Amino acid sequence: MITSTSNAQIKELIRLQRKGRARDEAGVFIVEGPRMAAEIPPERIVKFYVSESYMKKQHSSTGHSFHGEVLADAVFAHVSDTKTPQGVLAVVKRKEYTLDDILGNAEGSSIHGGQKPLDGYENPRNPHILVLDNLQDPGNLGTIFRTAEAAGATGVLLSRDCVDIYNPKVIRSTMGAVFRLPFLYTDDLPGTIEELKAAGIQVYAAHLEGENAYDEEDYRSGCAFLVGNEGNGLRNEVTACADHLIRIPMQGKAESLNAAVAASVLMFEVGRQRRNK
Amino acid sequence: MITSTSNAQIKELIRLQRKGRARDEAGVFIVEGPRMAAEIPPERIVKFYVSESYMKKQHSSTGHSFHGEVLADAVFAHVSDTKTPQGVLAVVKRKEYTLDDILGNAEGSSIHGGQKPLDGYENPRNPHILVLDNLQDPGNLGTIFRTAEAAGATGVLLSRDCVDIYNPKVIRSTMGAVFRLPFLYTDDLPGTIEELKAAGIQVYAAHLEGENAYDEEDYRSGCAFLVGNEGNGLRNEVTACADHLIRIPMQGKAESLNAAVAASVLMFEVGRQRRNK
Repeated sequence: MITSTSNAQIKELIRLQRKGRARDEAGVFIVEGPRMAAEIPPERIVKFYVSESYMKKQHSSTGHSFHGEVLADAVFAHVSDTKTPQGVLAVVKRKEYTLDDILGNAEGSSIHGGQKPLDGYENPRNPHILVLDNLQDPGNLGTIFRTAEAAGATGVLLSRDCVDIYNPKVIRSTMGAVFRLPFLYTDDLPGTIEELKAAGIQVYAAHLEGENAYDEEDYRSGCAFLVGNEGNGLRNEVTACADHLIRIPMQGKAESLNAAVAASVLMFEVGRQRRNK
Repeated sequence: MITSTSNAQIKELIRLQRKGRARDEAGVFIVEGPRMAAEIPPERIVKFYVSESYMKKQHSSTGHSFHGEVLADAVFAHVSDTKTPQGVLAVVKRKEYTLDDILGNAEGSSIHGGQKPLDGYENPRNPHILVLDNLQDPGNLGTIFRTAEAAGATGVLLSRDCVDIYNPKVIRSTMGAVFRLPFLYTDDLPGTIEELKAAGIQVYAAHLEGENAYDEEDYRSGCAFLVGNEGNGLRNEVTACADHLIRIPMQGKAESLNAAVAASVLMFEVGRQRRNK
């Protein structure tokens, strides 16, 4: 059992929790809590850590149980990113995706792997992509991943300056979708959007000045949605890449929607149209 | 200028920030930041406070400017609920709503007050109600209010054990919708749902075991949606009140949606149907 916070492994864990660059260099990220840990693809687990009290308790508990290097509770609390640590922490290897994965083309991509498509979905690999421009809120990014998987998106494309998907708060709020939904950061968002268009994808920008309401377009063939920063919306050079500007009609005095809500409404409209074609 | 945190007004402000019961007894709540402050209906303002540096700065700034009792910056930081205080804080009188307001019937309700209904909306006062059962996350409740206003909901009904709408974090994330969207807490949620049904409202429960997909129902006449707790969903006795169980089809391995996302998808489906009737 590790009982000191000056242990070398503990110091490294803390670096990985706090510094995106340390995570990038090591090619890993950290996952906390038994629910999230149960979703990790086994081949990607680098190492498990459990707290002393978790180890003692789990013999009596039901459901999943995890074994790993044991940390004294105070040491576990020190490395945990949460206020009420749940006693399970894993270092997980990243998976690198390609644009083909985002398009739903690659054999290796696993969002529908092993699962039957939901009733009514005839072609679940029909490209359905969310493109995020400078999204900053960790909770929003996590919620977008969770929703995108549920809505049947094939992948998420992110500008390099979006919040880090491997930020512990993002990982938590994906509820496991981060292990299954292909995603790709790009240094040149407009350039990558052009690649999508060259692959036959229609590109829609959610924009307050959109001409058609979002439900007046046809998303049954390959489509991508551009969603912008929480405060500032899409950058002009990104909006300029869109084939169509669409708007989500709003009543009352509401000026905008939360970015995750806007993305959700669009992605479920795709699902609705593809089910009811 | 108030320079001491032991000033009686400061002590009272801190009580109002931290204790729901103190807010209930005083019949007020606290609003922070210039953006939110600009949305407060003037007749409901009890008192404004500004920080010393905000007062000095606002002569040179553009946009809204607020005047009030001045607090030394350290005192302002002490009463603020945020990590980076914006220098404006208001005590605001509550507004009590009735079930008639929620139904969109009362003259006094103001969600569409003074505004033209959006193009295509023929009857914006057609009841469209969100019913929340034991919702606990402040960010979710705020986002639901913000989205409900935008989606054209007429009101929100909440079980007494939902998170306090006057919690500072909830207030912030409503983005001002809390000043405009009628809402009502009830001690007897099933009883109040029966009142909705007696008023001719069709009641739909979002439920994993729903029979029809959410987009297979007709929401063009008065409707209400039951949305449950983040972890546990709807209580059985609340689900039992519904006329119909509906499901939001999900792909991949997603087991559920964030409560605010589920509510958003349902509310915008109402808007879509009512526009395209």
